Amino acid sequence: MRRLLVPSTLIAVAGLSLLAFTPVQTADETPLWGFTQAGSRAQRELEARLDAQLQPDSLRVWLKYLSRHPNQLGSPGDSANAEWIAAHYRAWGFQTRIDTYQVLFPTPRERLLELVAPTRRRMNLAEPVLKEDATSAIVKGRLPPYNAYSADGDVEAEVVYVNYGVPQDYEELARRGIDVRGKIVLARYGGSWRGIKPKVAAEKGAIGCLIYSDPRDDGYYNGDVYPKGAWRREDGFQRGSVEDMPQYPGDPLTPGVGATRDAKRMDRKDSPVIMKIPVLPISYQDAEPILAAMSGPMAPPSWRGALPLPYHLGPGPAKVHLKLAFNWDLVPAHDVVAMLPGSRYPDQWVLRGNHMDGWVFGAGDPLSGQVALLEEARAVGILARSGWRPQRTIVYTSWDGEEPGLLGSTEFAEDHAAELERKAVAYINSDSNGRGFLGVGGSHQLERFVTQIAGDVKDPETGATALARLRARLEVAGNDGAARGDLEISPLGSGSDYTPFLQHLGIPSLNIGYGGEGGGGSYHSVFDSFDYYRRFGDPTFEYGVALAKTGGRATLRLADADVLPFRYSSLANRIHTYLGQVEKLAGDMRTSTQRLDHLVDIKAYALADDPTETWVVPQKKDSVPYLNFAPLENSVARLRKAATAYDAALAGKMAAGGPSEQEARNLNGLLQGLEERLLSPDGLPRRPWFRHMIYAPGFWTGYGVKTLPGVREGVEQREWDNVSKYVTEISDALDRLSSGLEQATGMLDS
Amino acid sequence: MRRLLVPSTLIAVAGLSLLAFTPVQTADETPLWGFTQAGSRAQRELEARLDAQLQPDSLRVWLKYLSRHPNQLGSPGDSANAEWIAAHYRAWGFQTRIDTYQVLFPTPRERLLELVAPTRRRMNLAEPVLKEDATSAIVKGRLPPYNAYSADGDVEAEVVYVNYGVPQDYEELARRGIDVRGKIVLARYGGSWRGIKPKVAAEKGAIGCLIYSDPRDDGYYNGDVYPKGAWRREDGFQRGSVEDMPQYPGDPLTPGVGATRDAKRMDRKDSPVIMKIPVLPISYQDAEPILAAMSGPMAPPSWRGALPLPYHLGPGPAKVHLKLAFNWDLVPAHDVVAMLPGSRYPDQWVLRGNHMDGWVFGAGDPLSGQVALLEEARAVGILARSGWRPQRTIVYTSWDGEEPGLLGSTEFAEDHAAELERKAVAYINSDSNGRGFLGVGGSHQLERFVTQIAGDVKDPETGATALARLRARLEVAGNDGAARGDLEISPLGSGSDYTPFLQHLGIPSLNIGYGGEGGGGSYHSVFDSFDYYRRFGDPTFEYGVALAKTGGRATLRLADADVLPFRYSSLANRIHTYLGQVEKLAGDMRTSTQRLDHLVDIKAYALADDPTETWVVPQKKDSVPYLNFAPLENSVARLRKAATAYDAALAGKMAAGGPSEQEARNLNGLLQGLEERLLSPDGLPRRPWFRHMIYAPGFWTGYGVKTLPGVREGVEQREWDNVSKYVTEISDALDRLSSGLEQATGMLDS
Repeated sequence: MRRLLVPSTLIAVAGLSLLAFTPVQTADETPLWGFTQAGSRAQRELEARLDAQLQPDSLRVWLKYLSRHPNQLGSPGDSANAEWIAAHYRAWGFQTRIDTYQVLFPTPRERLLELVAPTRRRMNLAEPVLKEDATSAIVKGRLPPYNAYSADGDVEAEVVYVNYGVPQDYEELARRGIDVRGKIVLARYGGSWRGIKPKVAAEKGAIGCLIYSDPRDDGYYNGDVYPKGAWRREDGFQRGSVEDMPQYPGDPLTPGVGATRDAKRMDRKDSPVIMKIPVLPISYQDAEPILAAMSGPMAPPSWRGALPLPYHLGPGPAKVHLKLAFNWDLVPAHDVVAMLPGSRYPDQWVLRGNHMDGWVFGAGDPLSGQVALLEEARAVGILARSGWRPQRTIVYTSWDGEEPGLLGSTEFAEDHAAELERKAVAYINSDSNGRGFLGVGGSHQLERFVTQIAGDVKDPETGATALARLRARLEVAGNDGAARGDLEISPLGSGSDYTPFLQHLGIPSLNIGYGGEGGGGSYHSVFDSFDYYRRFGDPTFEYGVALAKTGGRATLRLADADVLPFRYSSLANRIHTYLGQVEKLAGDMRTSTQRLDHLVDIKAYALADDPTETWVVPQKKDSVPYLNFAPLENSVARLRKAATAYDAALAGKMAAGGPSEQEARNLNGLLQGLEERLLSPDGLPRRPWFRHMIYAPGFWTGYGVKTLPGVREGVEQREWDNVSKYVTEISDALDRLSSGLEQATGMLDS
Repeated sequence: MRRLLVPSTLIAVAGLSLLAFTPVQTADETPLWGFTQAGSRAQRELEARLDAQLQPDSLRVWLKYLSRHPNQLGSPGDSANAEWIAAHYRAWGFQTRIDTYQVLFPTPRERLLELVAPTRRRMNLAEPVLKEDATSAIVKGRLPPYNAYSADGDVEAEVVYVNYGVPQDYEELARRGIDVRGKIVLARYGGSWRGIKPKVAAEKGAIGCLIYSDPRDDGYYNGDVYPKGAWRREDGFQRGSVEDMPQYPGDPLTPGVGATRDAKRMDRKDSPVIMKIPVLPISYQDAEPILAAMSGPMAPPSWRGALPLPYHLGPGPAKVHLKLAFNWDLVPAHDVVAMLPGSRYPDQWVLRGNHMDGWVFGAGDPLSGQVALLEEARAVGILARSGWRPQRTIVYTSWDGEEPGLLGSTEFAEDHAAELERKAVAYINSDSNGRGFLGVGGSHQLERFVTQIAGDVKDPETGATALARLRARLEVAGNDGAARGDLEISPLGSGSDYTPFLQHLGIPSLNIGYGGEGGGGSYHSVFDSFDYYRRFGDPTFEYGVALAKTGGRATLRLADADVLPFRYSSLANRIHTYLGQVEKLAGDMRTSTQRLDHLVDIKAYALADDPTETWVVPQKKDSVPYLNFAPLENSVARLRKAATAYDAALAGKMAAGGPSEQEARNLNGLLQGLEERLLSPDGLPRRPWFRHMIYAPGFWTGYGVKTLPGVREGVEQREWDNVSKYVTEISDALDRLSSGLEQATGMLDS
């Protein structure tokens, strides 16, 4: 049963208000990158009109409405939300459709966890109902806490505490003579993306994995717990996917192609991205008796959390029984796609997206971002009905199935790969949003672009610009250098829907959002609710409006720029920095390997260790060879030169009134495909789906980015042949980009 | 009632065993510093004979005996132990006396702590009886947990949590708009010597102070709690003095003079070293309900402990009532002094001491060190009865009243100041001892001396030398430089009985002990017991034997050296390093002040802070002037030259067979008074008792050392006039030392 909570006035187009609109003179008259002086002025006037449409009330009402029922992938609430969103896009004047894919999405059939030794205790595995949180009482249609794409399994074994469960944690365990073969590991959330924990545990021989939220990282250590404060309760759980997304995201059965009804599917048992062992998230209330029953060496100090007990590593004597079984169903994923055709470049697409599926009610993640996206689209629709049309086609997208593994966006990107490669000029993503500071990640040729947007959007709390607040924080943190010049936007790893566009298709991408001043204890729990969000997320919804202003500017500027607003010297300089990091990494590893070997040789460990405890002297490692980074150095040097020349040529051309119609058309056509030149057709080692040579999520770290991943992970994993291979691959990619830039500069100079 | 547990054979001198003794050829033939090649060989043979006498059983039996009853200052057990120790020194052939002083020592008459809001709860304030710990059942004669030299008081107020309660913690509170005036502060142990906490709190206007042991620093966070493991229980308390010892230690009523029966005493209310507010140590079990009832801003992350709650700063709403009253009695302090006259230089004294008073049973602190000292003295007595006599007089001392404030040692040093200044060549201290690594602090001209001793003593666990283990640990920690060359011994602040000798009288001093592999949860509690110590301190008592070997070598080498074994280039180089640190400190403060002013000017704090929380923008500070360190630079340069020349001249002379009898006599006479030249008669600002210009405990940090204290604290406190004054004072002191060294070099060259 659906209640229609949204007032009809918000669906109707408020066209009349435009008649009374007086253009606002903005203070900043610095020309926008990619625009002429006159174009900049017109664009800023358009944005002032956009801003005038944005109402926090829309966001509040929609958020409450969309989060009133469970809305995970495949649920009735999710389908209903998709239809509701599509109806709104249509009402606002967008050409709207729903693309539906059939994706594998396991849901729990049985979950059992019990401590069986030294005492017996069955764990609760359920979240409570709170009177302060209205939707917490809704049980119908809601999924209990679990990790999607865990294996089915029924295992019983002693427990080993493995900290965050990343590879270096197992080195510490080995130093203490502890092996997880045949054991069940207990890992805490944090320190890596969650899917890394069972993946590494399985590689090390563990037969099961529990992941709990330690109050040190996500609970009372950080502040009062919900509902008194924002932080995670003792009986709070973090759901989440453990699909091996660093291999490939999306439907596990159809890598590389859209999961249409008739797509060819692999057998589930052959899918490499489904976990090999059972894995379950638990609360710190359920973890505490297990940890309290552990013995063995003390965990290293940095491993110890905030539970009131000594953290022992085990193995055992705590022993647990874990039994998990799932329904392995294909379910529909509904992507809502809303287009506003461009007047001048209808075949150049600016995509703007945010997912709409949550884990339960999803008020913060993703609906806080979704409603800002919708409000932005509503305002753009009003602009369009007032007579303005974008130069390029604008595509608003509300993705389904992001939570289990970027399913909706990935299947869409794979299904429409050829068209997107030909047409997409950029993809702008958002996700959860809240009170605080602007955060931006993305393709580095967009740093000037982002800086100019941040300089034009007011921070709701201070009245300063979002840029001024960010710079103030950088100054206070002692990062003076970064506080001047253009903002350094973060390179993107993974964790939201930009991944298929950027890393599979090579489309310039941005991820934007506000945050950092709210609490963090509702993530992927039943308490990610409207009641929580209006207290701790963005009580006035003004940061939702700020996101709509930010995303709106990004979308409109990309759509209307005379020349696509890419400034490549930022990209070239950042790549130069990354190369320096990788070279230093290799040097540091060489030194630390020599040092390790020396310490083993002189028996320093044996003498320094406490002889009454078990300490295993580390093994010596093969020395790190000197590596040939010269091809990359040469290509980076060429790129820096080509990028600087292009940026200067473009600035000169724009100052002189801009390119001619034909020049602009030729130039934009060339620029549209430039990021794609950074792809390599073979992709990365172990994961050909990831084709971008500059950005990838870490294969052993998860969401966290690895820049120059082929080379960086080659060094980290001591795979020297891969280093050589990817020095060449990246050099070639950079050379292709340089050629394009040299060609573009030629167009501008001619 | 006393039971005589010690077998009479241990009191009898085991003279016969010497007859069977065969000299051991030691591996290391490097000459000892201050000895000729022949003298070195003889000395090492003597030490091998010393080692042969040392028996872990003595230590075990004596430790159990001396810790069988409470033995705090003024107690019957303390007097009995003093008599027992004196009887043993006498039996071993020492000229033994007990010097008794009358010192002010408050003991609790009333202790009340209750939470009065938001709920009422009276705190327990008592330690439990444990069946695993025999002496914990002994209540008679034992003092409950308290802080000696707290003020009497009866106060009730809201609580503010102040972290470690050091000055910079109050800056963080001010940043959050929190003032402690009229409040009771709750501080945790650690981060400074405990006496700093109530001292700073009172300066800031607080009316009471509670100090608790947080399990993060001293409890389950570190390991299993007693009796399962070594760490502090939830109902464990840390007693301790809060006398303002950084002003002056010893009897509060008789600074600078011995507290003899007829000494002139100031009125108690005039004593500046008694705390101005009531202060009480509590357990984490008693602190938890107070912290759980706090509200206000969250404490900064580094302030948060391991209790399972969010650490709020307050003020309140938790409110407590604290009532304390003490018996302010004069009690006797019995110093046991045992002398073995020197054959060649009877008026050159080598002092070796360890205190004997504990807070309750004192098994670890101080008796573990005391019994090692006694075993060392017993063995030296055997050597003496076999015909050997030291060249210089050896003085073994067992101090009383160290715990309340170095009372016994300070009164002895003040009482015998003139004689000590004339006769003492060095003071070697020890205190608690345990399993682990050798730790040494002291006068830096003893670095070669200490390195050679550490190289000659075997570590009981590994069979390597103590030096090799230390170096292995430094290597593993990445401190390769320090792992080569001479050991860098730590500069001494305060915290044990070396302070009056080094910092008041200018006698070269060492503090030695083993430790670092036991737990730490019994310190100053009823559980510092024999049962605890034999499980977690030094189960085999072999580290007690190692301490006796180490202290014995130090004592015998100082007593027998042809030329006093000081190597001054180590001292000169360390002072050079300290000067560099102080100069860097001033430069860093200048930069950070400029930076702070800049951030305030550009309103960066206002923009970066969360506007929904209370943040007070820091105030600008006066800029740091450029300071004239040139006189100090010149004096350090002269000292380095003079020291290098002296060391070279001495090495040459010793290699050539050593000085003549008269040369040696003249040289040793000069060297005896050299460290005293580093005193300044006016002492340090606010504390004329502390006269050493190179080493002092921090006035605002407590035990922790401040090197070049007049200048360093002048910079830290922005007292530029003091900086200038102490640049001159230290330069003059260094010049006096350089003159002495130049004179000594002249003697060697002539």
